[in-house]
Amino acid sequence: MFVAVMGFGTVGSGVAELLDKNHDSIVKKSMQDSLELKYILDIRDFPDSPYKDKLIKDFNIILNDPEIEIVVETMGGVTFAYDFVKKSLLAGKSVVTSNKELVAQHGYELLTIANEKNVNFLFEASVGGGIPIIRPMAQCLAANEIDSIAGILNGTTNYILTKMITENQSFDEALKKAQELGYAEKDPTADVDGHDSCRKICILAALAFGKHVYPDSVHTEGIRNITLSDVAYAACWGGVIKLIASAKKLDNGQVNVTVGPTFVARHSQLAGVDDVFNAALIRGDATGDVVFYGKGAGKMPTASAVVADVIDAAKHIEKKKFFGWDAAEDNYIADYNTAVTALYVRGTADDKQAVIKALNDSIGAVHVLTRENAPENEIAFVTNPAAEGELKAKINAVSGLSVTSVIRVADY
Amino acid sequence: MFVAVMGFGTVGSGVAELLDKNHDSIVKKSMQDSLELKYILDIRDFPDSPYKDKLIKDFNIILNDPEIEIVVETMGGVTFAYDFVKKSLLAGKSVVTSNKELVAQHGYELLTIANEKNVNFLFEASVGGGIPIIRPMAQCLAANEIDSIAGILNGTTNYILTKMITENQSFDEALKKAQELGYAEKDPTADVDGHDSCRKICILAALAFGKHVYPDSVHTEGIRNITLSDVAYAACWGGVIKLIASAKKLDNGQVNVTVGPTFVARHSQLAGVDDVFNAALIRGDATGDVVFYGKGAGKMPTASAVVADVIDAAKHIEKKKFFGWDAAEDNYIADYNTAVTALYVRGTADDKQAVIKALNDSIGAVHVLTRENAPENEIAFVTNPAAEGELKAKINAVSGLSVTSVIRVADY
Repeated sequence: MFVAVMGFGTVGSGVAELLDKNHDSIVKKSMQDSLELKYILDIRDFPDSPYKDKLIKDFNIILNDPEIEIVVETMGGVTFAYDFVKKSLLAGKSVVTSNKELVAQHGYELLTIANEKNVNFLFEASVGGGIPIIRPMAQCLAANEIDSIAGILNGTTNYILTKMITENQSFDEALKKAQELGYAEKDPTADVDGHDSCRKICILAALAFGKHVYPDSVHTEGIRNITLSDVAYAACWGGVIKLIASAKKLDNGQVNVTVGPTFVARHSQLAGVDDVFNAALIRGDATGDVVFYGKGAGKMPTASAVVADVIDAAKHIEKKKFFGWDAAEDNYIADYNTAVTALYVRGTADDKQAVIKALNDSIGAVHVLTRENAPENEIAFVTNPAAEGELKAKINAVSGLSVTSVIRVADY
Repeated sequence: MFVAVMGFGTVGSGVAELLDKNHDSIVKKSMQDSLELKYILDIRDFPDSPYKDKLIKDFNIILNDPEIEIVVETMGGVTFAYDFVKKSLLAGKSVVTSNKELVAQHGYELLTIANEKNVNFLFEASVGGGIPIIRPMAQCLAANEIDSIAGILNGTTNYILTKMITENQSFDEALKKAQELGYAEKDPTADVDGHDSCRKICILAALAFGKHVYPDSVHTEGIRNITLSDVAYAACWGGVIKLIASAKKLDNGQVNVTVGPTFVARHSQLAGVDDVFNAALIRGDATGDVVFYGKGAGKMPTASAVVADVIDAAKHIEKKKFFGWDAAEDNYIADYNTAVTALYVRGTADDKQAVIKALNDSIGAVHVLTRENAPENEIAFVTNPAAEGELKAKINAVSGLSVTSVIRVADY
């Protein structure tokens, strides 16, 4: 059996190396007589690569070669990746991808084509890098109804927040450090503004709850506005700030999907997930809480997840795996303002006692937080849970209080 | 398609309930037209059970009914379970079991029969209850070479140790509490002496490294002798005592498999796994550390893992899943005394300075530990890593030192 890899970047070259290095055990586990890498597609030249004989620049060579039964897409982006993956599936080839943007945007369509053509479309590496999350969710939790998912799904932002929490670095300092170490891109938007986490929670939500979720239907907040004073108040409250991507089934059949900085209590299994590590907490009706934890990115962890999918695709080349979800639906994603959550609020007030009394009358008792060296007129508190939109409206209506920062408080 | 359940105890009744409650989604995920529970085998009467019409007492009814394609074994024990499971496999029926003793003792033989008969023999629930461990290890980490596994695999002992660490209860007090809560059996031997953990690590080691490991080939220590002074010294050192089941590939091709109380540093992912929770840390060459965490036991978590296997068996009824390992081999399990580890030692010495000097000369510098209210002549220290047998011999040879307690120190 022959495989082609599209995109010879970090992950793609890791895939080529793993297919080489663990060749014999991979062939055995695939239950095939052979499993060989035939082509690597990339527009760039790699004159010094040990794989230079396999490098090609024309996708049609892959598409028109009937020997290629599995295509690996590690190009990233959506334009070309979507075109090549769709054509590959339509040509009856199985596809393995690490591209979360592709799956979050076009997963439903591509899975439908894969189903029609009776081939596999697998994407374990698109969420959590080398941590097995998608397959355990789809298979091992098959007997469960999943109630909710909460994940730290982006290593860059988790690294930045960890530096802010443990070393008292500002967001800008921590971001600079992350860029120096190669954890953050020169343009860090996709990570720090939450878009990467958003794509990943869309994939997990679709898998868990059965309908496609488009990234632009998900309320997404990043971590740019988190300050060290918020970090200090979180510590006073008994927790840490994490960028949490969450999806929760509501009683009315809707699903609440959000990405945003969140207060997480210190005893939570997610509070100790530091640096570039990722974790997903899955709450099922029968299993209770299950957590998957590990390094969420990096060349070899991600490549190993891709290769595991290649093995699985090879093993199921005749009988494809059941894997999929239905099309997106209107009114399926709940308005996040209607979801019930406690909120942390930081602001300023000249007469703090009056503001606390007014809050009490309006939204019930609040838990007032303190920190060292706070300006005289700074006020911070955590509310009881209520519908987010109403809560915010009532807080903003309190006279004498000017709100600077609002962060959700997790209940896991 | 029809299913039979053997053993209507805690897990078996949970399986029946789940097959009922999530019937439609289970059928869909199985890719079958139907999936119905036909028989429940138990020698006891359950006149008030909603399943009383399905209850039978004669295994041969299951064996001789060609409609039964999947047999679930949740009886526990080995004698009858082994006989019934073997006969079921030989009759061409797939078997799903939660019985770790059965798999640890007879896994190789039963997997071989399943292979020959082209049926499935699945046992996700045998390790970690509802936490998916076996399948992610077998499949998702397929592209990895696994280097080592370290797990907290027994909820009862973890509950007892947690009570000792956080509430300063003695072993006897904590055990009594665990028995009151139903976490520990009246005869707690299998849990507190490490046998349960041993069976589970045998299964994980076989899966990870490819050869059957018999429980009696594994050096196993329990937690009966752990005292609150050991707990205090662990805290002084910067960690906690956990019952760790570990398996590690050695450079010479052997595997070191042990179960025993272990000092685990506070920053380790395993240190925060408390109460009845379980976790397994899997170290692979490509993924780095991956941790699976959740409630390791309980009726519904375990039943949900069994039902997930039933779904998988149903889905692969025609083409079985590849899953297995080779027979056990002589000289495959390393003598634990040859493995390199640091040790914690507690003992008594009248002239402590002289003993520390003698230790220094014999095994190099030791890290001396202190605790409050220690008797005048008590001494405790942590060594540098060395071969365990030699290290112990040298420590025992130090004159003036009488050793009371020795505990391994983890390097993860």
